[in-house]
Amino acid sequence: MIIDVLRATSTIAAALHNGAKSIIPVDSVAECIKLGKQMEVITAGERDGKIAEGLEYGNSPLTYPGKFIKGKTLVLTTTNGTKLLHMALAENAKAIITGSFSNLSAVCDYLVEQKQNVILACAAWKDKINLEDTLFAGSVINRIKEHFSINCDASKIAESLYQEAKPDLYEFMKNKQASHYLRLTNFGLEEDIRYCLTIDNHNVLPIYQEGRLIAKKEN
Amino acid sequence: MIIDVLRATSTIAAALHNGAKSIIPVDSVAECIKLGKQMEVITAGERDGKIAEGLEYGNSPLTYPGKFIKGKTLVLTTTNGTKLLHMALAENAKAIITGSFSNLSAVCDYLVEQKQNVILACAAWKDKINLEDTLFAGSVINRIKEHFSINCDASKIAESLYQEAKPDLYEFMKNKQASHYLRLTNFGLEEDIRYCLTIDNHNVLPIYQEGRLIAKKEN
Repeated sequence: MIIDVLRATSTIAAALHNGAKSIIPVDSVAECIKLGKQMEVITAGERDGKIAEGLEYGNSPLTYPGKFIKGKTLVLTTTNGTKLLHMALAENAKAIITGSFSNLSAVCDYLVEQKQNVILACAAWKDKINLEDTLFAGSVINRIKEHFSINCDASKIAESLYQEAKPDLYEFMKNKQASHYLRLTNFGLEEDIRYCLTIDNHNVLPIYQEGRLIAKKEN
Repeated sequence: MIIDVLRATSTIAAALHNGAKSIIPVDSVAECIKLGKQMEVITAGERDGKIAEGLEYGNSPLTYPGKFIKGKTLVLTTTNGTKLLHMALAENAKAIITGSFSNLSAVCDYLVEQKQNVILACAAWKDKINLEDTLFAGSVINRIKEHFSINCDASKIAESLYQEAKPDLYEFMKNKQASHYLRLTNFGLEEDIRYCLTIDNHNVLPIYQEGRLIAKKEN
Protein backbone atom coordinates (compact mmCIF):
# COMPACT_ATOMS: atom_id res chain seq x y z
CA MET A 1 0.00 0.00 0.00
CA ILE A 2 1.35 3.39 -1.03
CA ILE A 3 0.82 6.20 1.48
CA ASP A 4 1.21 9.90 0.77
CA VAL A 5 -1.37 11.52 3.00
CA LEU A 6 -0.46 15.16 2.23
CA ARG A 7 -1.78 15.09 -0.40
CA ALA A 8 -1.40 12.62 -3.27
CA THR A 9 -3.18 9.55 -1.87
CA SER A 10 -5.91 11.69 -0.26
CA THR A 11 -6.54 13.36 -3.61
CA ILE A 12 -6.61 9.96 -5.34
CA ALA A 13 -9.27 8.77 -2.87
CA ALA A 14 -11.33 11.96 -3.33
CA ALA A 15 -11.21 11.91 -7.14
CA LEU A 16 -12.04 8.20 -7.45
CA HIS A 17 -14.77 8.37 -4.81
CA ASN A 18 -16.25 11.33 -6.65
CA GLY A 19 -16.44 9.27 -9.83
CA ALA A 20 -13.17 9.77 -11.71
CA LYS A 21 -12.77 6.99 -14.30
CA SER A 22 -9.10 6.51 -13.50
CA ILE A 23 -5.98 8.29 -12.30
CA ILE A 24 -2.62 8.02 -14.01
CA PRO A 25 0.21 8.77 -11.59
CA VAL A 26 3.35 10.20 -13.19
CA ASP A 27 6.59 11.38 -11.63
CA SER A 28 7.21 14.65 -13.47
CA VAL A 29 5.43 17.75 -14.69
CA ALA A 30 6.88 17.13 -18.18
CA GLU A 31 5.35 13.63 -18.34
CA CYS A 32 2.05 15.06 -17.13
CA ILE A 33 2.04 17.70 -19.89
CA LYS A 34 2.98 15.06 -22.49
CA LEU A 35 0.07 12.80 -21.54
CA GLY A 36 -2.23 15.82 -21.47
CA LYS A 37 -1.41 16.45 -25.14
CA GLN A 38 -1.84 12.80 -26.16
CA MET A 39 -5.13 12.02 -24.41
CA GLU A 40 -8.27 13.71 -23.23
CA VAL A 41 -7.38 13.98 -19.56
CA ILE A 42 -7.15 16.50 -16.75
CA THR A 43 -3.57 17.30 -15.81
CA ALA A 44 -2.71 18.16 -12.24
CA GLY A 45 0.31 18.84 -10.10
CA GLU A 46 1.92 21.46 -7.89
CA ARG A 47 5.33 22.79 -7.24
CA ASP A 48 5.89 24.93 -4.15
CA GLY A 49 2.19 25.15 -3.35
CA LYS A 50 1.13 26.45 -6.76
CA ILE A 51 -0.23 24.72 -9.85
CA ALA A 52 2.84 23.75 -11.88
CA GLU A 53 3.38 25.67 -15.10
CA GLY A 54 1.75 23.87 -18.02
CA LEU A 55 -0.75 21.94 -15.85
CA GLU A 56 -4.41 22.71 -15.25
CA TYR A 57 -5.15 21.84 -11.62
CA GLY A 58 -3.52 21.48 -8.23
CA ASN A 59 -2.97 18.69 -5.70
CA SER A 60 -5.83 19.50 -3.37
CA PRO A 61 -8.50 16.82 -2.78
CA LEU A 62 -11.00 19.71 -2.52
CA THR A 63 -10.45 20.49 -6.20
CA TYR A 64 -12.17 17.32 -7.41
CA PRO A 65 -15.90 17.30 -6.62
CA GLY A 66 -18.16 14.90 -8.52
CA LYS A 67 -19.64 17.55 -10.79
CA PHE A 68 -16.16 18.22 -12.13
CA ILE A 69 -14.34 14.87 -12.07
CA LYS A 70 -17.07 12.28 -12.72
CA GLY A 71 -16.18 10.03 -15.65
CA LYS A 72 -12.89 11.78 -16.34
CA THR A 73 -9.28 10.63 -16.23
CA LEU A 74 -6.84 12.55 -14.09
CA VAL A 75 -3.06 12.59 -14.68
CA LEU A 76 -1.44 13.49 -11.38
CA THR A 77 2.23 14.21 -10.74
CA THR A 78 3.47 12.74 -7.48
CA THR A 79 7.23 12.40 -7.23
CA ASN A 80 7.59 10.34 -4.06
CA GLY A 81 4.48 8.27 -4.66
CA THR A 82 5.51 7.28 -8.18
CA LYS A 83 8.94 6.24 -6.91
CA LEU A 84 7.27 3.88 -4.44
CA LEU A 85 5.00 2.57 -7.17
CA HIS A 86 8.02 1.61 -9.27
CA MET A 87 9.61 -0.06 -6.25
CA ALA A 88 6.43 -2.08 -5.67
CA LEU A 89 6.32 -3.11 -9.34
CA ALA A 90 10.00 -4.12 -9.19
CA GLU A 91 9.23 -6.30 -6.17
CA ASN A 92 6.39 -7.98 -8.07
CA ALA A 93 3.76 -6.92 -5.55
CA LYS A 94 0.62 -9.02 -6.03
CA ALA A 95 -1.51 -5.92 -5.69
CA ILE A 96 -0.82 -2.22 -5.25
CA ILE A 97 -3.34 0.03 -3.53
CA THR A 98 -3.15 3.59 -2.24
CA GLY A 99 -4.18 4.63 1.26
CA SER A 100 -5.03 7.77 3.19
CA PHE A 101 -7.18 8.66 6.18
CA SER A 102 -9.91 9.45 3.63
CA ASN A 103 -10.21 5.76 2.77
CA LEU A 104 -8.89 4.06 5.91
CA SER A 105 -11.75 1.58 6.31
CA ALA A 106 -11.77 0.51 2.66
CA VAL A 107 -8.04 -0.29 2.61
CA CYS A 108 -8.12 -2.02 6.01
CA ASP A 109 -11.06 -4.22 4.97
CA TYR A 110 -9.22 -5.14 1.78
CA LEU A 111 -5.96 -6.02 3.57
CA VAL A 112 -7.76 -8.24 6.07
CA GLU A 113 -9.72 -10.01 3.30
CA GLN A 114 -6.68 -10.63 1.12
CA LYS A 115 -4.65 -12.42 3.82
CA GLN A 116 -1.36 -11.54 2.12
CA ASN A 117 1.89 -10.02 3.35
CA VAL A 118 1.59 -6.25 3.43
CA ILE A 119 4.13 -3.48 3.04
CA LEU A 120 2.98 -0.05 4.21
CA ALA A 121 5.08 2.19 1.98
CA CYS A 122 5.22 5.75 3.27
CA ALA A 123 6.19 8.26 0.60
CA ALA A 124 7.19 10.90 3.13
CA TRP A 125 9.26 13.77 1.75
CA LYS A 126 12.52 13.58 -0.19
CA ASP A 127 13.59 10.31 1.44
CA LYS A 128 12.90 11.60 4.96
CA ILE A 129 10.29 10.16 7.29
CA ASN A 130 7.27 12.37 7.89
CA LEU A 131 4.73 12.52 10.63
CA GLU A 132 1.43 12.15 8.73
CA ASP A 133 2.37 9.09 6.69
CA THR A 134 3.74 7.41 9.82
CA LEU A 135 0.48 8.26 11.64
CA PHE A 136 -1.60 6.78 8.85
CA ALA A 137 0.51 3.59 8.78
CA GLY A 138 0.00 3.47 12.57
CA SER A 139 -3.76 3.79 12.19
CA VAL A 140 -3.81 0.88 9.73
CA ILE A 141 -1.71 -1.28 12.07
CA ASN A 142 -3.94 -0.33 14.98
CA ARG A 143 -7.00 -1.54 13.08
CA ILE A 144 -5.73 -4.74 11.52
CA LYS A 145 -2.87 -5.99 13.70
CA GLU A 146 -4.84 -8.89 15.11
CA HIS A 147 -4.99 -10.41 11.64
CA PHE A 148 -1.24 -10.24 11.01
CA SER A 149 2.06 -11.11 12.64
CA ILE A 150 4.26 -8.04 12.85
CA ASN A 151 7.99 -8.30 13.36
CA CYS A 152 9.09 -4.78 12.60
CA ASP A 153 9.96 -2.06 15.10
CA ALA A 154 8.96 0.70 12.66
CA SER A 155 5.38 -0.63 12.74
CA LYS A 156 5.37 -0.57 16.52
CA ILE A 157 6.70 2.98 16.59
CA ALA A 158 4.05 4.06 14.06
CA GLU A 159 1.25 2.52 16.08
CA SER A 160 2.47 4.09 19.34
CA LEU A 161 2.57 7.46 17.64
CA TYR A 162 -0.93 7.00 16.29
CA GLN A 163 -2.28 6.06 19.72
CA GLU A 164 -0.88 9.32 21.05
CA ALA A 165 -2.21 11.40 18.16
CA LYS A 166 -5.59 9.71 17.83
CA PRO A 167 -7.70 12.11 19.94
CA ASP A 168 -6.96 14.97 17.50
CA LEU A 169 -4.72 14.32 14.52
CA TYR A 170 -4.69 17.95 13.39
CA GLU A 171 -3.75 19.27 16.83
CA PHE A 172 -0.99 16.65 17.05
CA MET A 173 0.47 17.75 13.71
CA LYS A 174 0.26 21.36 14.85
CA ASN A 175 1.72 20.78 18.32
CA LYS A 176 4.63 18.82 16.88
CA GLN A 177 5.13 21.44 14.20
CA ALA A 178 5.32 18.67 11.63
CA SER A 179 7.35 19.64 8.55
CA HIS A 180 4.38 19.28 6.18
CA TYR A 181 2.09 21.10 8.57
CA LEU A 182 4.48 24.05 8.42
CA ARG A 183 5.01 23.84 4.66
CA LEU A 184 1.32 23.64 3.74
CA THR A 185 0.22 26.17 6.36
CA ASN A 186 2.78 28.51 4.87
CA PHE A 187 0.91 28.17 1.55
CA GLY A 188 -2.42 28.87 3.30
CA LEU A 189 -3.56 25.25 3.00
CA GLU A 190 -4.76 24.51 6.56
CA GLU A 191 -8.10 23.41 5.17
CA ASP A 192 -6.39 20.80 3.00
CA ILE A 193 -4.55 19.44 6.04
CA ARG A 194 -7.77 19.11 8.04
CA TYR A 195 -9.50 17.46 5.10
CA CYS A 196 -6.67 14.96 4.57
CA LEU A 197 -6.74 14.01 8.26
CA THR A 198 -10.47 13.18 8.16
CA ILE A 199 -11.27 9.49 8.40
CA ASP A 200 -13.37 7.81 5.69
CA ASN A 201 -14.61 10.95 3.94
CA HIS A 202 -13.87 9.19 0.60
CA ASN A 203 -14.06 5.53 1.46
CA VAL A 204 -12.98 3.97 -1.80
CA LEU A 205 -10.37 1.33 -2.67
CA PRO A 206 -7.91 2.62 -5.30
CA ILE A 207 -6.10 -0.26 -6.97
CA TYR A 208 -3.34 -0.07 -9.57
CA GLN A 209 -4.00 -1.86 -12.84
CA GLU A 210 -2.13 -1.44 -16.10
CA GLY A 211 -0.66 1.95 -15.33
CA ARG A 212 -3.81 3.42 -13.78
CA LEU A 213 -5.48 3.65 -10.42
CA ILE A 214 -9.15 2.70 -10.51
CA ALA A 215 -11.80 2.29 -7.83
CA LYS A 216 -12.25 -1.37 -7.03
CA LYS A 217 -15.89 -2.33 -6.89
CA GLU A 218 -17.06 -4.38 -3.96
CA ASN A 219 -17.57 -8.07 -4.68
CA MET B 1 26.79 10.81 16.96
CA ILE B 2 26.65 7.09 16.28
CA ILE B 3 24.01 5.16 18.21
CA ASP B 4 23.87 1.38 18.57
CA VAL B 5 22.41 0.86 22.03
CA LEU B 6 22.14 -2.95 21.88
CA ARG B 7 25.01 -3.29 22.32
CA ALA B 8 28.00 -1.75 20.48
CA THR B 9 27.86 1.83 21.76
CA SER B 10 26.93 0.70 25.29
CA THR B 11 29.95 -1.62 25.32
CA ILE B 12 32.17 1.18 24.01
CA ALA B 13 31.01 3.42 26.89
CA ALA B 14 31.57 0.65 29.46
CA ALA B 15 35.05 -0.28 28.21
CA LEU B 16 36.29 3.31 27.95
CA HIS B 17 34.77 4.32 31.28
CA ASN B 18 36.44 1.30 32.87
CA GLY B 19 39.81 2.50 31.59
CA ALA B 20 40.33 0.96 28.14
CA LYS B 21 43.08 2.87 26.30
CA SER B 22 41.17 2.84 23.04
CA ILE B 23 38.67 0.93 20.96
CA ILE B 24 39.16 0.12 17.29
CA PRO B 25 35.80 -0.47 15.59
CA VAL B 26 35.97 -2.80 12.59
CA ASP B 27 33.21 -4.11 10.36
CA SER B 28 34.11 -7.79 10.07
CA VAL B 29 35.28 -10.72 12.13
CA ALA B 30 38.13 -11.28 9.62
CA GLU B 31 39.42 -7.71 10.10
CA CYS B 32 39.18 -8.18 13.86
CA ILE B 33 41.26 -11.37 13.73
CA LYS B 34 43.80 -9.71 11.42
CA LEU B 35 44.34 -6.77 13.82
CA GLY B 36 44.52 -9.21 16.72
CA LYS B 37 47.51 -10.89 15.05
CA GLN B 38 49.24 -7.59 14.22
CA MET B 39 48.90 -5.82 17.58
CA GLU B 40 48.55 -6.58 21.23
CA VAL B 41 44.83 -6.08 21.57
CA ILE B 42 41.70 -7.78 22.81
CA THR B 43 39.47 -8.96 19.99
CA ALA B 44 35.73 -9.05 20.45
CA GLY B 45 32.59 -9.67 18.48
CA GLU B 46 29.53 -11.88 18.31
CA ARG B 47 27.51 -13.61 15.68
CA ASP B 48 24.08 -14.95 16.61
CA GLY B 49 24.56 -14.30 20.31
CA LYS B 50 27.86 -16.21 20.61
CA ILE B 51 31.49 -15.12 20.53
CA ALA B 52 32.48 -15.25 16.86
CA GLU B 53 34.93 -17.98 15.89
CA GLY B 54 38.50 -16.72 16.09
CA LEU B 55 37.70 -13.90 18.54
CA GLU B 56 38.24 -13.82 22.29
CA TYR B 57 35.31 -11.94 23.81
CA GLY B 58 31.69 -11.04 23.21
CA ASN B 59 29.69 -7.84 22.78
CA SER B 60 28.36 -7.52 26.30
CA PRO B 61 29.21 -4.35 28.25
CA LEU B 62 29.30 -6.57 31.35
CA THR B 63 32.38 -8.34 29.98
CA TYR B 64 34.64 -5.33 30.40
CA PRO B 65 35.21 -4.44 34.07
CA GLY B 66 38.17 -2.22 34.97
CA LYS B 67 40.31 -5.05 36.33
CA PHE B 68 40.22 -6.64 32.90
CA ILE B 69 40.13 -3.78 30.39
CA LYS B 70 42.13 -0.98 32.05
CA GLY B 71 44.97 0.25 29.82
CA LYS B 72 44.15 -2.18 27.04
CA THR B 73 43.01 -1.71 23.45
CA LEU B 74 39.84 -3.43 22.30
CA VAL B 75 39.10 -4.30 18.67
CA LEU B 76 35.33 -4.60 18.36
CA THR B 77 33.35 -5.79 15.35
CA THR B 78 30.21 -3.78 14.82
CA THR B 79 28.73 -4.09 11.33
CA ASN B 80 26.05 -1.40 11.42
CA GLY B 81 28.05 0.99 13.59
CA THR B 82 31.11 0.85 11.35
CA LYS B 83 28.95 1.51 8.30
CA LEU B 84 27.68 4.70 9.95
CA LEU B 85 31.21 5.67 10.91
CA HIS B 86 32.27 5.49 7.28
CA MET B 87 29.23 7.56 6.28
CA ALA B 88 30.17 10.20 8.86
CA LEU B 89 33.77 10.27 7.61
CA ALA B 90 32.55 10.60 4.01
CA GLU B 91 30.42 13.58 5.07
CA ASN B 92 33.46 15.20 6.69
CA ALA B 93 31.84 15.31 10.12
CA LYS B 94 33.74 17.77 12.34
CA ALA B 95 33.60 15.30 15.20
CA ILE B 96 32.30 11.75 15.62
CA ILE B 97 31.17 10.51 19.01
CA THR B 98 29.26 7.41 20.12
CA GLY B 99 26.22 7.49 22.37
CA SER B 100 24.15 5.15 24.51
CA PHE B 101 21.97 5.43 27.61
CA SER B 102 25.13 4.54 29.56
CA ASN B 103 26.68 7.88 28.66
CA LEU B 104 23.65 10.04 27.93
CA SER B 105 24.70 13.03 30.05
CA ALA B 106 28.27 13.14 28.73
CA VAL B 107 27.18 13.21 25.08
CA CYS B 108 24.39 15.74 25.71
CA ASP B 109 26.74 18.09 27.55
CA TYR B 110 29.23 17.82 24.70
CA LEU B 111 26.61 18.52 21.99
CA VAL B 112 25.32 21.59 23.83
CA GLU B 113 28.88 22.93 24.37
CA GLN B 114 29.94 22.43 20.76
CA LYS B 115 27.10 24.45 19.24
CA GLN B 116 27.37 22.58 15.92
CA ASN B 117 24.85 20.87 13.69
CA VAL B 118 24.20 17.35 14.94
CA ILE B 119 23.17 14.15 13.18
CA LEU B 120 21.88 11.40 15.45
CA ALA B 121 22.81 8.33 13.42
CA CYS B 122 20.92 5.24 14.56
CA ALA B 123 22.61 2.00 13.52
CA ALA B 124 19.46 -0.07 14.02
CA TRP B 125 19.50 -3.50 12.42
CA LYS B 126 20.21 -4.38 8.80
CA ASP B 127 18.91 -1.05 7.48
CA LYS B 128 15.68 -1.27 9.47
CA ILE B 129 14.67 1.15 12.20
CA ASN B 130 14.77 -0.27 15.70
CA LEU B 131 13.10 0.76 18.89
CA GLU B 132 16.03 1.20 21.29
CA ASP B 133 18.15 3.44 19.04
CA THR B 134 15.10 5.57 18.27
CA LEU B 135 14.39 5.81 22.02
CA PHE B 136 17.94 6.90 22.74
CA ALA B 137 17.85 9.53 19.98
CA GLY B 138 14.57 10.69 21.53
CA SER B 139 16.15 10.97 24.97
CA VAL B 140 18.95 13.14 23.56
CA ILE B 141 16.47 15.40 21.75
CA ASN B 142 14.37 15.62 24.92
CA ARG B 143 17.39 16.86 26.87
CA ILE B 144 18.98 19.27 24.44
CA LYS B 145 16.22 20.48 22.12
CA GLU B 146 16.11 23.97 23.62
CA HIS B 147 19.63 24.56 22.35
CA PHE B 148 18.90 23.56 18.76
CA SER B 149 16.42 24.20 15.98
CA ILE B 150 14.92 20.94 14.79
CA ASN B 151 13.22 20.65 11.43
CA CYS B 152 12.89 16.91 11.07
CA ASP B 153 9.81 14.79 11.71
CA ALA B 154 11.90 11.73 12.61
CA SER B 155 13.31 13.67 15.59
CA LYS B 156 9.81 14.56 16.71
CA ILE B 157 8.65 10.97 16.41
CA ALA B 158 11.69 9.78 18.39
CA GLU B 159 11.07 12.28 21.17
CA SER B 160 7.36 11.38 21.40
CA LEU B 161 8.27 7.73 21.66
CA TYR B 162 10.81 8.44 24.38
CA GLN B 163 8.28 10.46 26.39
CA GLU B 164 5.98 7.45 26.31
CA ALA B 165 8.72 4.97 27.23
CA LYS B 166 10.50 7.11 29.82
CA PRO B 167 8.85 5.73 32.97
CA ASP B 168 10.33 2.27 32.30
CA LEU B 169 12.42 1.72 29.18
CA TYR B 170 12.80 -2.01 29.76
CA GLU B 171 9.07 -2.57 30.22
CA PHE B 172 8.39 -0.52 27.10
CA MET B 173 10.76 -2.68 25.04
CA LYS B 174 9.15 -5.78 26.48
CA ASN B 175 5.55 -4.61 26.00
CA LYS B 176 6.22 -3.64 22.41
CA GLN B 177 8.04 -6.92 21.81
CA ALA B 178 10.87 -4.95 20.19
CA SER B 179 12.83 -7.01 17.67
CA HIS B 180 16.10 -6.74 19.61
CA TYR B 181 14.35 -7.44 22.89
CA LEU B 182 13.14 -10.71 21.40
CA ARG B 183 16.46 -11.56 19.76
CA LEU B 184 18.61 -10.95 22.83
CA THR B 185 16.12 -12.49 25.26
CA ASN B 186 16.19 -15.56 23.05
CA PHE B 187 19.96 -15.73 23.72
CA GLY B 188 19.37 -15.34 27.48
CA LEU B 189 20.68 -11.78 27.51
CA GLU B 190 17.94 -9.97 29.49
CA GLU B 191 20.57 -8.65 31.89
CA ASP B 192 22.44 -7.04 29.00
CA ILE B 193 19.26 -5.32 27.85
CA ARG B 194 18.57 -3.91 31.32
CA TYR B 195 22.19 -2.77 31.64
CA CYS B 196 22.14 -1.05 28.24
CA LEU B 197 18.94 0.81 29.15
CA THR B 198 20.46 2.24 32.35
CA ILE B 199 21.19 5.94 32.22
CA ASP B 200 24.70 7.24 32.93
CA ASN B 201 26.19 4.04 34.35
CA HIS B 202 29.30 4.74 32.25
CA ASN B 203 29.25 8.46 31.76
CA VAL B 204 32.16 8.92 29.40
CA LEU B 205 32.55 10.76 26.07
CA PRO B 206 33.89 8.40 23.36
CA ILE B 207 35.33 10.40 20.46
CA TYR B 208 36.76 9.08 17.22
CA GLN B 209 40.33 10.09 16.42
CA GLU B 210 42.63 8.51 13.85
CA GLY B 211 40.80 5.23 13.58
CA ARG B 212 40.17 4.79 17.29
CA LEU B 213 37.61 5.71 19.88
CA ILE B 214 39.12 7.25 22.99
CA ALA B 215 37.62 8.79 26.12
CA LYS B 216 37.70 12.57 25.83
CA LYS B 217 38.98 14.17 28.98
CA GLU B 218 37.05 17.08 30.38
CA ASN B 219 38.55 20.50 29.71
